[in-house]
Amino acid sequence: MTLEEADDLHRQKKAKIAAAKEKLYADKVIEKGLLIVHTGTGKGKSTAAWGMAMRCLGHGLKLGVVQFGKGSRDSGERALFTRFPDLVRLVAVGEGFTWETQDKAADIAAAKEAFAAACAMLQDPSFHMVILDELNITLRYEYLPLDEVLAALRSRHPACHAVVTGRNARPELIEMADLATEMTLLKHPFRDGVKAQIGVEF
Amino acid sequence: MTLEEADDLHRQKKAKIAAAKEKLYADKVIEKGLLIVHTGTGKGKSTAAWGMAMRCLGHGLKLGVVQFGKGSRDSGERALFTRFPDLVRLVAVGEGFTWETQDKAADIAAAKEAFAAACAMLQDPSFHMVILDELNITLRYEYLPLDEVLAALRSRHPACHAVVTGRNARPELIEMADLATEMTLLKHPFRDGVKAQIGVEF
Repeated sequence: MTLEEADDLHRQKKAKIAAAKEKLYADKVIEKGLLIVHTGTGKGKSTAAWGMAMRCLGHGLKLGVVQFGKGSRDSGERALFTRFPDLVRLVAVGEGFTWETQDKAADIAAAKEAFAAACAMLQDPSFHMVILDELNITLRYEYLPLDEVLAALRSRHPACHAVVTGRNARPELIEMADLATEMTLLKHPFRDGVKAQIGVEF
Repeated sequence: MTLEEADDLHRQKKAKIAAAKEKLYADKVIEKGLLIVHTGTGKGKSTAAWGMAMRCLGHGLKLGVVQFGKGSRDSGERALFTRFPDLVRLVAVGEGFTWETQDKAADIAAAKEAFAAACAMLQDPSFHMVILDELNITLRYEYLPLDEVLAALRSRHPACHAVVTGRNARPELIEMADLATEMTLLKHPFRDGVKAQIGVEF
């Protein structure tokens, strides 16, 4: 095969892929608020939610963020959110809450307070996206009733994108989701004694 | 079991988890620039990279972004990056480049130009993080030589976090990575006729 023939083959192959993609996207016309779930034991569940938050902020779209766990005052995402006070409403109940407390009643009260704030945002048409960070953990520990959470998500404003993060997502939630991704660990630096680092983990 | 006994059990269980975690983190002391890979066929690979970008910006840390593919001028992430001109250096060769072109020579030239920019950033100690978005696609199509890319990553400034995204990551790259995550699709709205939406996909 000459170089010209190889180039020609490449061109034909790429043209075929482009045509197939065009066909694939032609019938994608529905716009609606999506229920998005990031789960799995790997990294990137909350991080990918912050990536979508960044997209919203870049477009000047309003964003609600409710942190049900492991939120930290010193995180880069929080620092960035505070730069956009008109666009971001952040709710983090039980500052520094990490599910390592030994008071179940306080944990449940905090989860309920955060959930109430989330419900209000999910109904508010001004929010383009509402991120429910680590909501899955409250469902796993049964700190919030699953049926109430599913009902709140189901009855949200139809244009609102809801993003739920956290490992061990309940099957019922995944079933209800429009888009669900599992993050799986292939390799982790903690195994080799490397600590959590600024800009990466927080 | 009385309510008090149940609470007590809960407290003991949580205390045990907290102690185990403390032990786990005690020997995590190494701080170094990490090589992070996001791969897999699911969503969230680039998005999680933007989430880390957001953390860096929140902390006021300098960031390099090289887009090897599918970059779009209209994306939310780009719009946000332009809000931080002092902190972000963005390189996107072949604007709107989507690997759907039919000119292999032009694709290779664009990949090489982007790679040269990436190499410079990886050596520059002022960058806390360098994101090589969709680099994996250039390796898969052999538009860049794998050994040169691995050498550039290996010889980067030791404090620099390098983030590589894209499906079909080469095994050699994963082997070299400190942190590698696979994003797997559990559910995707495109299946149901839903189109890519602002703030979510771009």
